[in-house]
Amino acid sequence: MLSKPSKVLFVITVLSGGVGAARLLSALSGETDPREITAIVNVADDLVLHGLTICPDLDTISYTLAGLNNEELGWGLRGESWRVMEELADLGGAAWFRLGDRDLATHLYRSQRLHEGATKSDVTRELCAHWGVKVRLLPVTNDEVSSEFETEVGHLTFQQYFVSHQHNVKVERIDFVGARKARATPEVLEALEECSRIIIAPSNPLISIDPILEVPGVRSILERRRDDVVAVSPIINGAALKGPADRLLAEMGWEVSSVGVADFYEGLIGTLVIDEADAALSDDIRARGINVRVTTTIMADPANAQRLAQVVLS
Amino acid sequence: MLSKPSKVLFVITVLSGGVGAARLLSALSGETDPREITAIVNVADDLVLHGLTICPDLDTISYTLAGLNNEELGWGLRGESWRVMEELADLGGAAWFRLGDRDLATHLYRSQRLHEGATKSDVTRELCAHWGVKVRLLPVTNDEVSSEFETEVGHLTFQQYFVSHQHNVKVERIDFVGARKARATPEVLEALEECSRIIIAPSNPLISIDPILEVPGVRSILERRRDDVVAVSPIINGAALKGPADRLLAEMGWEVSSVGVADFYEGLIGTLVIDEADAALSDDIRARGINVRVTTTIMADPANAQRLAQVVLS
Repeated sequence: MLSKPSKVLFVITVLSGGVGAARLLSALSGETDPREITAIVNVADDLVLHGLTICPDLDTISYTLAGLNNEELGWGLRGESWRVMEELADLGGAAWFRLGDRDLATHLYRSQRLHEGATKSDVTRELCAHWGVKVRLLPVTNDEVSSEFETEVGHLTFQQYFVSHQHNVKVERIDFVGARKARATPEVLEALEECSRIIIAPSNPLISIDPILEVPGVRSILERRRDDVVAVSPIINGAALKGPADRLLAEMGWEVSSVGVADFYEGLIGTLVIDEADAALSDDIRARGINVRVTTTIMADPANAQRLAQVVLS
Repeated sequence: MLSKPSKVLFVITVLSGGVGAARLLSALSGETDPREITAIVNVADDLVLHGLTICPDLDTISYTLAGLNNEELGWGLRGESWRVMEELADLGGAAWFRLGDRDLATHLYRSQRLHEGATKSDVTRELCAHWGVKVRLLPVTNDEVSSEFETEVGHLTFQQYFVSHQHNVKVERIDFVGARKARATPEVLEALEECSRIIIAPSNPLISIDPILEVPGVRSILERRRDDVVAVSPIINGAALKGPADRLLAEMGWEVSSVGVADFYEGLIGTLVIDEADAALSDDIRARGINVRVTTTIMADPANAQRLAQVVLS
């Protein structure tokens, strides 16, 4: 059992998807000065719906760090109401992607600011300042990137795959449209270069982390700094806690285990943090030249989340 | 005093702005089969705000004809709530243009359908079908037209002039940007050609009716059919009941009276309906070759509105 270390001051940068990253960032904020934490956030799930620009991962993280996240739902804002969606459904409108009244205000704010010429980075900074979020959130790029899926039922956008089909169809190919031409913002590249540690959150490697890595410049910094890169495996005992990471690993030809995650990140990470349930896989992972740390990676219990944060920072 | 005529069946087309037109259309629906009424609606007040396409005149008319209009406010929907606006104001967003939660559903629906490739005409037809509106509402064009103002405080968009400044600044020039290049929809031209009577609602001549007339094809049909065109004056006793019609007439160099309205519409109308308060102006108007009908034109009282509708149809 780990003894609680004294607070450490680390400048860290975390490659982040949505819920898993939000929990890790929240736990890390308890272990080090949150102003020394930068999250580089996936934008390939972002969508325009009803004319509104919606950034699910940025919103999940900022809502969580602001303490405004809806724990019952597992997404969105607490104290939410649904008047607009009810009326929209009554009109026969596209109500499959549920947007609460409070949440809509975020999207209206963002859409108007983008229309006025602000960037996604600007809007994120403004919203975080308003909510008192101290961790610095950076969309990986202000250019458009979108995850698209070739599946057994045809071509799907991210939200069609994730929400409409509830990721319950076989995927044949994943494309990050626009990623290769997208430019990482200068703050993103600087945060990756200048931090003392880069952490890959236990987000979905294939659809949350990969579209960050695909933005030119990001992958090569990780390759160069791999000894400073620590990933947390999102796979425990052959399954993802949440979402389709396990299924997608299999469909894309990777082993569905922390070994598969180590293979996926090979060349990019120096250390993989895996769950106690997978301790027996340690030697297989080390054989790939990757250090292994074993701890409880399930963050539902705050004490576990804190312990994971300590391991990641140690 | 007029005796109530038996119901008449007229195919009529009404050039329409917002509130005044909505009331007249509502009254006309009580006097003839609403399915024989077409409203050609101004779109030069339409705006994109928060990424949403908002059509104030189309919405005012459809809400009123559906019986959903908010009579206390004088705009928007009844039973409205304001959760999204409250949250948006809290975020420091642009909350000067108040959009209720129910109203927002309309704009979300429209914006999504436009994004999918539908036209404003399509969306209007869908919303009216949903609400059971029998009068046919046609945006004059599906192309972009916007009223813009050169004023003593500089260049203003319609909503900056109307809402932010509450039309309380001196206007030097009004431009309908895009109007000359806009194409009237085929349904609009057909409705103007084939109706038995064209009515100009008591909307603001300078900012509600003029941008309809400026769309190529519209003015020339009225010129050719002027004997079948009946306008209702929005000026009573030298003042507008609502809005800046009086002020704008003066600023643009017209007499602020029903005589000024007759001058503004000269060559386009065969008959002008004026209020009893202005009966003394009848000879001046007739001297311009325009017939005059005198009645109560204030529609706040439903009985008056019905009488006005009867006069317009007689």
